[in-house]
Amino acid sequence: MKRTYQDIRRTNRFAVMRHLIASAPVVRRDIAAATGLSVATASDIVNELHELGLLAEIGQQASGGGRPRNLLAPALEGPRLIGVDIAETYVHVEVFDPALRVLARAEYELHPHTNSPDYVVDRIVRGIDDAIAQAQVERGRILGVGVSIPGQVRPDGTASVFASNWNWNDVPLLALLTDRLPDVPVILDNPLRASTIAELWFGAARGRDNVAVLTLGTGVGAGLVIQGALYRGATNTAGEWGHTNLVIDGRNCRRGCVGCVETYVGAPGIMQHLAETDPDSPLLHPDDQMATINALATAHAAGDPAAQQVIATTGRYLGIAIANLINLCNPQIIVLTGWVADSLGSAVLPHVRATAARYALAEPWEGTEISLCPIDRNPVSLGAATLVLEGFLS
Amino acid sequence: MKRTYQDIRRTNRFAVMRHLIASAPVVRRDIAAATGLSVATASDIVNELHELGLLAEIGQQASGGGRPRNLLAPALEGPRLIGVDIAETYVHVEVFDPALRVLARAEYELHPHTNSPDYVVDRIVRGIDDAIAQAQVERGRILGVGVSIPGQVRPDGTASVFASNWNWNDVPLLALLTDRLPDVPVILDNPLRASTIAELWFGAARGRDNVAVLTLGTGVGAGLVIQGALYRGATNTAGEWGHTNLVIDGRNCRRGCVGCVETYVGAPGIMQHLAETDPDSPLLHPDDQMATINALATAHAAGDPAAQQVIATTGRYLGIAIANLINLCNPQIIVLTGWVADSLGSAVLPHVRATAARYALAEPWEGTEISLCPIDRNPVSLGAATLVLEGFLS
Repeated sequence: MKRTYQDIRRTNRFAVMRHLIASAPVVRRDIAAATGLSVATASDIVNELHELGLLAEIGQQASGGGRPRNLLAPALEGPRLIGVDIAETYVHVEVFDPALRVLARAEYELHPHTNSPDYVVDRIVRGIDDAIAQAQVERGRILGVGVSIPGQVRPDGTASVFASNWNWNDVPLLALLTDRLPDVPVILDNPLRASTIAELWFGAARGRDNVAVLTLGTGVGAGLVIQGALYRGATNTAGEWGHTNLVIDGRNCRRGCVGCVETYVGAPGIMQHLAETDPDSPLLHPDDQMATINALATAHAAGDPAAQQVIATTGRYLGIAIANLINLCNPQIIVLTGWVADSLGSAVLPHVRATAARYALAEPWEGTEISLCPIDRNPVSLGAATLVLEGFLS
Repeated sequence: MKRTYQDIRRTNRFAVMRHLIASAPVVRRDIAAATGLSVATASDIVNELHELGLLAEIGQQASGGGRPRNLLAPALEGPRLIGVDIAETYVHVEVFDPALRVLARAEYELHPHTNSPDYVVDRIVRGIDDAIAQAQVERGRILGVGVSIPGQVRPDGTASVFASNWNWNDVPLLALLTDRLPDVPVILDNPLRASTIAELWFGAARGRDNVAVLTLGTGVGAGLVIQGALYRGATNTAGEWGHTNLVIDGRNCRRGCVGCVETYVGAPGIMQHLAETDPDSPLLHPDDQMATINALATAHAAGDPAAQQVIATTGRYLGIAIANLINLCNPQIIVLTGWVADSLGSAVLPHVRATAARYALAEPWEGTEISLCPIDRNPVSLGAATLVLEGFLS
């Protein structure tokens, strides 16, 4: 409840580092102007970042008569960050420099029916070792590893995973990972939070105070940004927008609730719309969500009536669920991310906007925008690594 | 986005003043212990509050050998605060001391069909003059007037009011009031916010970081507390939970949306459940919401089957809408306030809890509680006056 001076210092460091990443090379007074800090405070933070090894002086700028000013940039030769995106079918690992540029990647498949924690942890560790070897980084130079896992991550580092073939409840994942990676700090969170941090630092949410980042995939959820920071709620479960109700007594959800948003706009929900529209549709691959969603996108673009109906139905449900967020949270921007949004986002967006305009109140509707994730690389591994950077800056 | 040192100072002042009001007489070290501040910081704030005239030294406490400690309390002879609760049928004015004890009250009826802004402003000003005269306060001693009006209040002080018989759109209410009250500062907000501030200072939300205060009356809405402070959103409309959707293509709402929470759990919505259950019910007073709701409460207590069915239906809708809040916002506590909650709250609560337990996810459900407003006086005028105090402390 009490805001502390540490909170402010952290927020200011984040702001300076974000500006540095986005606009380098910059001089101290640019940083002050862009962040709203005094030149003295900005200079203090620049010095701190320099000491932490995250910032480098890369040259000088002449200043009409006065002393030349140092040009500052993220220290490309500085510490390394690792981001891991775990999904049902793969482990994706990236190594980053302090500008969050990718230095190396590794990807391991996960077999859908062998998802024991030991097996998954082994694949994660192999992916990390592989990526570290490719990037030729000494392990002592790694600031930390951010791991995103699709599920509920508790403050004690245990995870319950909600992927349909996984059966994880309270798996001590952080302990298992730390056992295998004793030499690097590991943090654990879920893709909703990782994607939201990526939007906040690099995407459509940069510079915004109040944001909702909606992940659309097999599962569906939101990352909420309140006053410029990720909002976690009382027990770190805030953002379960995917499990708010859309249809009373509606479809059953794998998480035990009824008629929730996820059962109508998640990939299995969209497949159900398709099966209800045309049970014999050639677009339907009952055992392959991604193939079905991509086939829908292609068929929609080609004018296929069943695909258009499914897209319209999905967009209507999504529009109502987004209007609820707009009315309750009054965000400046809503960003759609995740693989279903990548595939169907542009097709579904006109339907979403038309429906949300009808269900949202005029004032918050006029104060918001709805956009697709503009980040052209994996936002989850990027966000997971950025969580490590945020932790280090705190 | 940037948190400032002023934010912290304000938050700390609020914490000290709240503790002082709740627990006086206290000594400096009690304040430090209760607020988590250092004794030095707590002492600085005590001195500031003393200079502002809000705090008095009312005696001394012996301290085993050392220097006696000053006993501190809100300055009962200090400045005065005024809170105004405007509803469809009345203007209620209260004068408070810095402990937020009521010194005087005045109430004027509003005729439901003469709600021109000039008429309403005239009643407000008369109520204020009347209450000031009763309390025998010189006008120079009044810190300010907080006015709560049921509707949307914009940052420029214009108001749109959503009471069913009013037809206010962008009425420059703040300017009209300031014209008539040139000698006292006036602030304007709505009852959702006033009730929330009252819960935060004096009610069930004291000491909580993440709270939703739900006002149930003719209209329905939420006040959201995030990290201990009122959350207003991007354009000051956050909290329109009453207009989130419950039934797709459901009942029409006076605000233009469709099937929203308010149309199922607001007083007119409850009356519609009753009319649908038993069109000839003797409980139904078509032109008197309060008489109908109170008749329902009495009949429910007496075991009347129609009343019990209406309460169960209302509780089920309310439970789903509350589960949505729990899943999305993960609050520590949800407080029900407003005249419908006063009348039907204890009857409806078991149904709310049973339904919310089914529709909420297990983790956030276990981390929250649902309770009725424990404040035994008008929370709206109290909260409106507290908004003045908060403004002064900022």
